[in-house]
Amino acid sequence: MLSLKKGDNKSKEEKIVDHIRSLSIDMINEASSGHPGIALGAAPILYTLYAHHLNFSINQPKWINRDRFILSGGHGSALLYATLFFAGFDITLEDLKQFRKIDSITPGHPEYGVTPGVDMSTGPLGQGVATSVGMAMAEEFLASTFNTKKEEIFNYYTYVLCGEGDLMEGVSYEALSLAGTLKLHKLIVLYDANNITLDGNLDLTFQENVSERMASFGFNVLPMVNGDDLNAIDKAIAKAKTSLDKPSFIPIKTTIGKYSKWQGTNKVHGTLLEQEDITSMKEKLEIRDIPFSVSNEAVMDMRECIHQRGLDEKYQKWLTMYENLEEKTKKLLDSIQDYDASFEVDELYMDGKEENMTSLREVSHKMLNAIAKSSPFFLGGASDVASSTKTYLNDLGDFSRSNYQGKNIWFGVREHAMGAILNGLALSGLAPFGSTYLAFSDYLKPALRLAAMMELPITYVFTHDSISVGADGPTHQAVEQLASLRAIPNVEVFRPADANEVIGVYQAILAKKNSPSVIVLSRNDVPVQKTTSIPLVANGAYVVRPEERNLSGVIIATGEEVNLAIQVANRLVEKGIDLRVVSMVSIERFLNQSKEYQEEILPVATKTIVIEAASSYSWYRFVYDDKYLITQDHFGYSGTKDEVLAKCGFDFESVLAKVEKLFK
Amino acid sequence: MLSLKKGDNKSKEEKIVDHIRSLSIDMINEASSGHPGIALGAAPILYTLYAHHLNFSINQPKWINRDRFILSGGHGSALLYATLFFAGFDITLEDLKQFRKIDSITPGHPEYGVTPGVDMSTGPLGQGVATSVGMAMAEEFLASTFNTKKEEIFNYYTYVLCGEGDLMEGVSYEALSLAGTLKLHKLIVLYDANNITLDGNLDLTFQENVSERMASFGFNVLPMVNGDDLNAIDKAIAKAKTSLDKPSFIPIKTTIGKYSKWQGTNKVHGTLLEQEDITSMKEKLEIRDIPFSVSNEAVMDMRECIHQRGLDEKYQKWLTMYENLEEKTKKLLDSIQDYDASFEVDELYMDGKEENMTSLREVSHKMLNAIAKSSPFFLGGASDVASSTKTYLNDLGDFSRSNYQGKNIWFGVREHAMGAILNGLALSGLAPFGSTYLAFSDYLKPALRLAAMMELPITYVFTHDSISVGADGPTHQAVEQLASLRAIPNVEVFRPADANEVIGVYQAILAKKNSPSVIVLSRNDVPVQKTTSIPLVANGAYVVRPEERNLSGVIIATGEEVNLAIQVANRLVEKGIDLRVVSMVSIERFLNQSKEYQEEILPVATKTIVIEAASSYSWYRFVYDDKYLITQDHFGYSGTKDEVLAKCGFDFESVLAKVEKLFK
Repeated sequence: MLSLKKGDNKSKEEKIVDHIRSLSIDMINEASSGHPGIALGAAPILYTLYAHHLNFSINQPKWINRDRFILSGGHGSALLYATLFFAGFDITLEDLKQFRKIDSITPGHPEYGVTPGVDMSTGPLGQGVATSVGMAMAEEFLASTFNTKKEEIFNYYTYVLCGEGDLMEGVSYEALSLAGTLKLHKLIVLYDANNITLDGNLDLTFQENVSERMASFGFNVLPMVNGDDLNAIDKAIAKAKTSLDKPSFIPIKTTIGKYSKWQGTNKVHGTLLEQEDITSMKEKLEIRDIPFSVSNEAVMDMRECIHQRGLDEKYQKWLTMYENLEEKTKKLLDSIQDYDASFEVDELYMDGKEENMTSLREVSHKMLNAIAKSSPFFLGGASDVASSTKTYLNDLGDFSRSNYQGKNIWFGVREHAMGAILNGLALSGLAPFGSTYLAFSDYLKPALRLAAMMELPITYVFTHDSISVGADGPTHQAVEQLASLRAIPNVEVFRPADANEVIGVYQAILAKKNSPSVIVLSRNDVPVQKTTSIPLVANGAYVVRPEERNLSGVIIATGEEVNLAIQVANRLVEKGIDLRVVSMVSIERFLNQSKEYQEEILPVATKTIVIEAASSYSWYRFVYDDKYLITQDHFGYSGTKDEVLAKCGFDFESVLAKVEKLFK
Repeated sequence: MLSLKKGDNKSKEEKIVDHIRSLSIDMINEASSGHPGIALGAAPILYTLYAHHLNFSINQPKWINRDRFILSGGHGSALLYATLFFAGFDITLEDLKQFRKIDSITPGHPEYGVTPGVDMSTGPLGQGVATSVGMAMAEEFLASTFNTKKEEIFNYYTYVLCGEGDLMEGVSYEALSLAGTLKLHKLIVLYDANNITLDGNLDLTFQENVSERMASFGFNVLPMVNGDDLNAIDKAIAKAKTSLDKPSFIPIKTTIGKYSKWQGTNKVHGTLLEQEDITSMKEKLEIRDIPFSVSNEAVMDMRECIHQRGLDEKYQKWLTMYENLEEKTKKLLDSIQDYDASFEVDELYMDGKEENMTSLREVSHKMLNAIAKSSPFFLGGASDVASSTKTYLNDLGDFSRSNYQGKNIWFGVREHAMGAILNGLALSGLAPFGSTYLAFSDYLKPALRLAAMMELPITYVFTHDSISVGADGPTHQAVEQLASLRAIPNVEVFRPADANEVIGVYQAILAKKNSPSVIVLSRNDVPVQKTTSIPLVANGAYVVRPEERNLSGVIIATGEEVNLAIQVANRLVEKGIDLRVVSMVSIERFLNQSKEYQEEILPVATKTIVIEAASSYSWYRFVYDDKYLITQDHFGYSGTKDEVLAKCGFDFESVLAKVEKLFK
């Protein structure tokens, strides 16, 4: 521990750090909830970063060339807000007093869009680290797209502060491994090594040599820094910034809960400090023991320190450079800041109908290519299944250490990192897409949830969407995934029936903003229906086969089951059962239509049947009774497609018999 | 490539390997589906393992002291089945011809319980590696529990074969990091390093130094072995078995699709070989170009090789040792083999009611402790939140490198590995539990799905179950997770309302076998109801507040909303609205009751309202219209518990008003 006798020569900087510590503790105490440990331990790191390194504009916190900072351990929010306050962001002392209270700009964990200076919502461990990799990738992409020999429109660093918990999470491993492969040298990982997690010390859980591990990924690994030594932290960050071909990793030895009587133990991770402990701490820190008594001097000193780095001038200089750009370029840059990556898509696939395409994946492939060609910010890839999900962007290059302008991202077999990296790309103003098999969407759910929470415009293409995958068997056959995805707030799930609807889905997604979309595709060929509509997809559901005379009932179907439903209806009309078939491409969309439209499509008091080879959980709302659900509530089987469909009752004859029975 | 001119001195062993290769290709060709790449590339590894190292009994493939082998890249199933056939397991040539066909014992990816000799279902990458860590942990636990100075009841090795894809997945990282920490020296990871994945080579995706990485975890890393050199593979495995305090990692350089014209490229990963390619390959291998023409000599040679290792004698010797054990011990060992880890639980918490316990987590804690004390095979832990989810087993020790008998497993901040490791423990005959916050159950979904598919008796305790978490905010507040979990086939989800129901839930779980159970608990104190029942929980739903005279309607509620529902009903009866309240602890359970019971609890043609602070997707089946759902379909907020509940309309007054309105 630092010797801090009264009257000791504590530097100005140390005083600021101590005031940030004290303020964080006051916030947590006032909220009666929060995490003192990281606030006390990591304050020197945040101070050093904001005071000496981070480029930002307090007046324009969304400046697209600002350095990014992600607090991956979002439970350190009090420390972050206190630091932002000290740094001069638009956060008042009153805001800090509202820490963790409803409708405040200082929520329990950092929330993107709520607090100026917060670049991402964090809380679930590992996500911040992985998303920072996406931000660093975005910087490389934007820099290589916009920078000229003369001018650097983009040259920001991405910093992330993480703890042991973040690094234990697989998603951070996945992303950091890719960061090493991609040589993202402007990514700087600050590792708050306090050797403590919520449950205790790391003896039983985490004995790896983290620095060696990071070196094995191709990181520039700096020697362990003493977390109490501001100068050492400063120098290490400065050194990291000089790395030319490797991302950097700075391990910093800190003491969790420093100055509390519980310092260095897990007791101080997420438990309130007792009043007496706070009093004793403030005495050590030479700060008045009155909550929120902030030293004006300390605040001014920190802001002066930042001011002297010439951040305002840097921002102004950038603005001048921006003003001198061509209008077209300016417009593009604006669209990044507004998260409004506008698409002007080749009309080829948007106008007419696709009458000969039976592979939905191929149509999707064409659409992805058309969009990517027209939109400078549309990029993405798959978790090593691009050749199977058909998401490769032809002639648009591979994103790699030798070509950061490439629009094909090779995520590797890393679904979860893909999800988190897509978040980072979207948070940087790009419009990314990702892809895997629907059954494996489970792997990336935590990242997709954050995308939904942050309302990011990300497109997912999940193929191989049901038991109709066939021979690969139950592990590869989605059953419950559609219901799971639909249940996530803010996510729109689309399951198109044929080539036309695939086009319609992409059009609907292009027309919207700011929330994730999921396109779910069969791996099988599906005939193009004469009656499917491109524009009506935007309504979520519409009639693809009208009843012929007197409506006996309605079949709702999705995806490849729409064709099945139409066939069944065509057969049953011969037997006097006159069915309408509705393609419900997106439940969410349909439920957002007017009541009138909904009742036009699904007349009240009409027998309604659902056919979807997936969990019934999605569908009860549309039927009167379970027996009207022709759905799939158990795992599938390995066999040929037809064998599996028959065994699960999704062959034509079985479905025909089931539907017919419902009208007897 | 090996020089293999005709008449060359190919060893007997090489001939066997080539026949295994050829047979695998015939299977894939016959199925018109499968993955030739790994089969051709990794055949020497599987051969060497089964012929020279793996201890097993072909007559008793479930022998509890057999060595385990997990093919983590489950797409190599053809190779595995061909090898098992050669090794003498109860798989016929006819079975191999049925590869990937419906109802065969040779499905597209290995399925646990379907094929003799298959120790786990694999397919989703990374899972096999992570689960093998659980198996190695189980071995250490069982060995330290049962072995005496004289006798080793358990001393098996766990082998896992994985590829680059497996190692890129975060779940494998998480588990391997823990394996290093725990010094699981009987875990041997065989790394099939072919430098190719589905989409191409690893240049763009995976440039880490894998051996260095594994060393940083504390693995015994062997030098890279030439995958064509049977002798070298053999020696490396032998060497790995001598490791006394570290798990081993053997990188083996192989050629994907060896002998195909596409060898060494991704074209051969999952694409059928053309006939001419097969013909040319068989010529190189000196095997008749007739499908399934297996050399009897090669089969006999392999079986003889295995026979000479004295596996039968080993098994007999073990059986003799077993026969001489005390009856009690024998019974315990039998229960492992039958996956029937029987519980005899302290009656203290099973008989009476808990009238004073308001913390559901504390009651759960008591139950876990009671079970763990009585049942030798009940063990588990949390992903670094045991102190918060209250899952620590008092006085039962921590599972660690110095105490493998400890029943508290410290998974670290590794939810996904926890899930996969629990699978490994359960596959080894133990009855494990795991725990985290409900919102973070997303992280482990892929492992839980496999548990459900394999019907493993695993108990999950997910706490902090809704927006009522309060200040930690939306990232920590579950919304859609309940619906997601309920939609997984074979998983029972329980959300108890009070202390009594928590006891009832544990009783219900103890009484069942072979499928995962999820217990979902509030973090808040909840009053004990006079009317809740321990035994009725087993029915899934029952009446906790009967109507007083004339039934006006029914409220279904779960968890802490049951108390709210009762309060609302009590208030409304004063206004002439006479409501019944049903606690639906488990939807799955309730739906498995008789139609009569279901209608007794939920009378037909009765207004039914649902109150659950979670996604409405779970509930449509019980209500007539959306308006009867008082549910939570958007993300929560950061604020005090009461603030958040009020903002989401889950405070008493809001719910009261909503329910009342439905009866006007």
